[in-house]
Amino acid sequence: MSLSPPRRIRTHAVDNVAIVVNDGGLDAGTIFDDGLRLLERIPQGHKVALEPIAAGAPVRRYGVVIGHAARDLPAGAWVHERVLHMPQARSLEGLPRADAVASREAVPDLSHLSFEGYRNPDGSVGTRNLLAITQTVQCVAGIARLAAERIRSELLPHYPHVDGVVALEHSYGCGVAIEAPGAEIPIRTLRHIALNPNFGGEVLMISLGCEKLQPDRLMPSDLRVVPITVDGPSAASVSSTVVRLQDEQHVGFMSMVEAVVRQAAPHLQRLNARRRETVPIAELVVGVQCGGSDAFSGLTANPVVGACTDLLVRAGATVMFSENTEVRDAVEQLTSRAANTQVAQQLIDELAWTDRYLQRGGVDRSANTTPGNKAGGLSNIVEKAMGSIVKSGSSPIQAVLKPGDKLARGQRGLVYCATPASDFICGTLQLAAGMNLHVFTTGRGTPYGLAEVPVIKVGTRTELAQRWHDLIDLNAGRVADGACTVEQAGLDLLNLMLEVASGRHHTWAERWKLHNALVLFNPAPVT
Amino acid sequence: MSLSPPRRIRTHAVDNVAIVVNDGGLDAGTIFDDGLRLLERIPQGHKVALEPIAAGAPVRRYGVVIGHAARDLPAGAWVHERVLHMPQARSLEGLPRADAVASREAVPDLSHLSFEGYRNPDGSVGTRNLLAITQTVQCVAGIARLAAERIRSELLPHYPHVDGVVALEHSYGCGVAIEAPGAEIPIRTLRHIALNPNFGGEVLMISLGCEKLQPDRLMPSDLRVVPITVDGPSAASVSSTVVRLQDEQHVGFMSMVEAVVRQAAPHLQRLNARRRETVPIAELVVGVQCGGSDAFSGLTANPVVGACTDLLVRAGATVMFSENTEVRDAVEQLTSRAANTQVAQQLIDELAWTDRYLQRGGVDRSANTTPGNKAGGLSNIVEKAMGSIVKSGSSPIQAVLKPGDKLARGQRGLVYCATPASDFICGTLQLAAGMNLHVFTTGRGTPYGLAEVPVIKVGTRTELAQRWHDLIDLNAGRVADGACTVEQAGLDLLNLMLEVASGRHHTWAERWKLHNALVLFNPAPVT
Repeated sequence: MSLSPPRRIRTHAVDNVAIVVNDGGLDAGTIFDDGLRLLERIPQGHKVALEPIAAGAPVRRYGVVIGHAARDLPAGAWVHERVLHMPQARSLEGLPRADAVASREAVPDLSHLSFEGYRNPDGSVGTRNLLAITQTVQCVAGIARLAAERIRSELLPHYPHVDGVVALEHSYGCGVAIEAPGAEIPIRTLRHIALNPNFGGEVLMISLGCEKLQPDRLMPSDLRVVPITVDGPSAASVSSTVVRLQDEQHVGFMSMVEAVVRQAAPHLQRLNARRRETVPIAELVVGVQCGGSDAFSGLTANPVVGACTDLLVRAGATVMFSENTEVRDAVEQLTSRAANTQVAQQLIDELAWTDRYLQRGGVDRSANTTPGNKAGGLSNIVEKAMGSIVKSGSSPIQAVLKPGDKLARGQRGLVYCATPASDFICGTLQLAAGMNLHVFTTGRGTPYGLAEVPVIKVGTRTELAQRWHDLIDLNAGRVADGACTVEQAGLDLLNLMLEVASGRHHTWAERWKLHNALVLFNPAPVT
Repeated sequence: MSLSPPRRIRTHAVDNVAIVVNDGGLDAGTIFDDGLRLLERIPQGHKVALEPIAAGAPVRRYGVVIGHAARDLPAGAWVHERVLHMPQARSLEGLPRADAVASREAVPDLSHLSFEGYRNPDGSVGTRNLLAITQTVQCVAGIARLAAERIRSELLPHYPHVDGVVALEHSYGCGVAIEAPGAEIPIRTLRHIALNPNFGGEVLMISLGCEKLQPDRLMPSDLRVVPITVDGPSAASVSSTVVRLQDEQHVGFMSMVEAVVRQAAPHLQRLNARRRETVPIAELVVGVQCGGSDAFSGLTANPVVGACTDLLVRAGATVMFSENTEVRDAVEQLTSRAANTQVAQQLIDELAWTDRYLQRGGVDRSANTTPGNKAGGLSNIVEKAMGSIVKSGSSPIQAVLKPGDKLARGQRGLVYCATPASDFICGTLQLAAGMNLHVFTTGRGTPYGLAEVPVIKVGTRTELAQRWHDLIDLNAGRVADGACTVEQAGLDLLNLMLEVASGRHHTWAERWKLHNALVLFNPAPVT
């Protein structure tokens, strides 16, 4: 029940449903300005039929068919998942390819903007200056954690320009079928996370010794050099050291921890010598994803991110979007927006791979939606997908990365990073892809955060942003409130990004040290 | 090169290979007492041919065929993985069932022994008194970790009889195909870990709100009651509270953390009221596994554990052994030792499931072995399996648990807990099965530990036990040194178990707080 005037939002001119905006929803009998009368109570974020929809007729949101009416739905009826039949997934045959006309005139050119970042030897730019402790295998995680604590308390005070120490714990490395099809995904993911721009090309690796994922396999030697000097940055792009716990020189637990602490010092010394410098906005590599979505995700937060994406791409920066099962139903729009037919084919290949992967496990893309999505008004994966891809804005898709792949040098613009939609797996794979900033939109609310890269959380509703006042970094609910336009909020987000990237502003997740675990995508068996 | 007299061990009378025992291995030209002369250098733990083995002829260790010679192998030759063809896996058809004759006379009856444990309302006995924080989804892990830290620093000093606080972090709960075949495994695993004997039936659960794995699904309400009193132990076997972060009453981060801390207090109060009491040795539920195995695992540490297993089983206690891919090649011995034909069939069903699971992923049981296994002298999975099942001793197998299943009340004796061999997944599933003590044998060395249950680490070689003097709890290498018999070391292990279970002795992993992560077995897809 709401005391404010009833409000609804229709996303597209051909839609026959709209979203109820008012906090707490609207009661049966509520009458809108135009005379539409609610036949039943409709919760906030849920859909109302704008006109009579006959049984079997299409229900349209975002201008696309999100389902067919399971029974006659009169105008003013509540349209939810139980009165909708979900459409079949679009065949991956005969899709349009690279035929969209990009219209960038409307997007201002902000390429003159800049931020303060750490330039890396490999040409990438960090937004934080962190010592990462790479681990070949879960066996070493206990030692790595204790060593990281000692480095933090004993060494870090002497290296004031280093922002922190991150133990890259994970569950891979042994007890896995390391030669099976798909095993290359977790391996390259770990390799590329170690090379994330926020770690400055310094790789301190802990290995057990007998594990399947040997240091040379995680990080082939042509990618790294063993530093021979500690006097300032090395000429190579990656300086790496390995502490192997089973080596004979380590006598007892303390000697292992101390070896890690000792090896950390030269890495810290080089990191500490670095300073932020002014770099163009084009050096941003932003990973975007959504989690805990509701019907407002596609109305407020994701369009705001999409507007910001267009600004960033026009300014020469890189934006990665992801979540295979959440773009599957929008495949036609994506292949159409591919920059060329090769990119379109790569998109199709990745989504076809995912179709097969899910089928092998006995499910399909509809396994994606959650109880919270449905409570929040998202009837099915089609509606969720249409709201999800809005984050990608309207720019052409320049490239496709396979899961765990890393951006090639010079690869810029809008990139599809093919990942599962799981928040943690997607974030982990975007870290591997080389993001230096993460934007996460949420409708139901999640205290998501990463230790490796700052996460800016964008909320879909003002009520959430107020209740989670010290967790949500930007309130996109203002768009639904009529307090600002999508474009204005997109510009606000871009400005916040530059502040965060420059280290002048810390996100709530950083302030509270809210860190979610790395979760690897391993489609291969464990043994 | 070794200065001590050359030593080798043959495991079984029909074996045509033996294991080189000397530290550092033995050089070409070394002559044993009986005149056997090494034709090449053989590393410690590796096999020497005791007689000429013609190309294609069987190579026998543990009295079974571990492979066929790839070429003529003269007496004194090094027999390693590159000169052995691995046999096919034994068909799961036509296996013997429950036909072994158990001979327990040789095993002394130690059922009069006891330890000091915490009796739980459900009849189980804890060896530690821990507050566990159960989590429905990875989303809440950041809050759970910070809340656990506050509970440790602010509350725990007021509850001196509580041993610690364990945040049960995991990567499951959302972004997964929760209705797919196999998804029941991670779900029941989490449920049963929350009910581990060391947590006293107190379930403090953190939920996000919108996740797929809702609290009622993780822990159905018929398993738990919401406590209405804080005055001493509740009558029900499980007292549970849920903090749901998306609930409207939580305004901001601090209120979430404080809600968890507040809810922890009554759980701590009840745990703190408990005292250890003397219980029979039969209340031990020991999970055994091996990791970082070498050729000595099957000569020293695993036989010592096997001797202890026989003592425990005869005394009425429960011992769980596991690791599907490491017992697959010994299936015949296991089905033969099944207590009845139903148990034999359950063994076959679980191993057939694993065969299909691996095949679906494009591999077979040979994906198990690691570089360290091979460096340590284990030529293939057959040899590794024969050394692995020795941990199970010689008692009949009374029951089979599916992965994530929990021991039924009154289920005792030797139990096969069907799990992958991955150390972390096996440990996690044995926690779910209800172990209150964990024994881990290692040859190459691993700093393995769990926060939930004490882990006793048994080393296979004296050199390892000396080098890792503050990580290995028991040196089974004394058996290879001739310093004691397998039976004597088995009794030593049993005595150490009683000390550890009673809280009078803390394992090295406990002292250093070496904690490996929970790693769930999820054969279903992520989304």
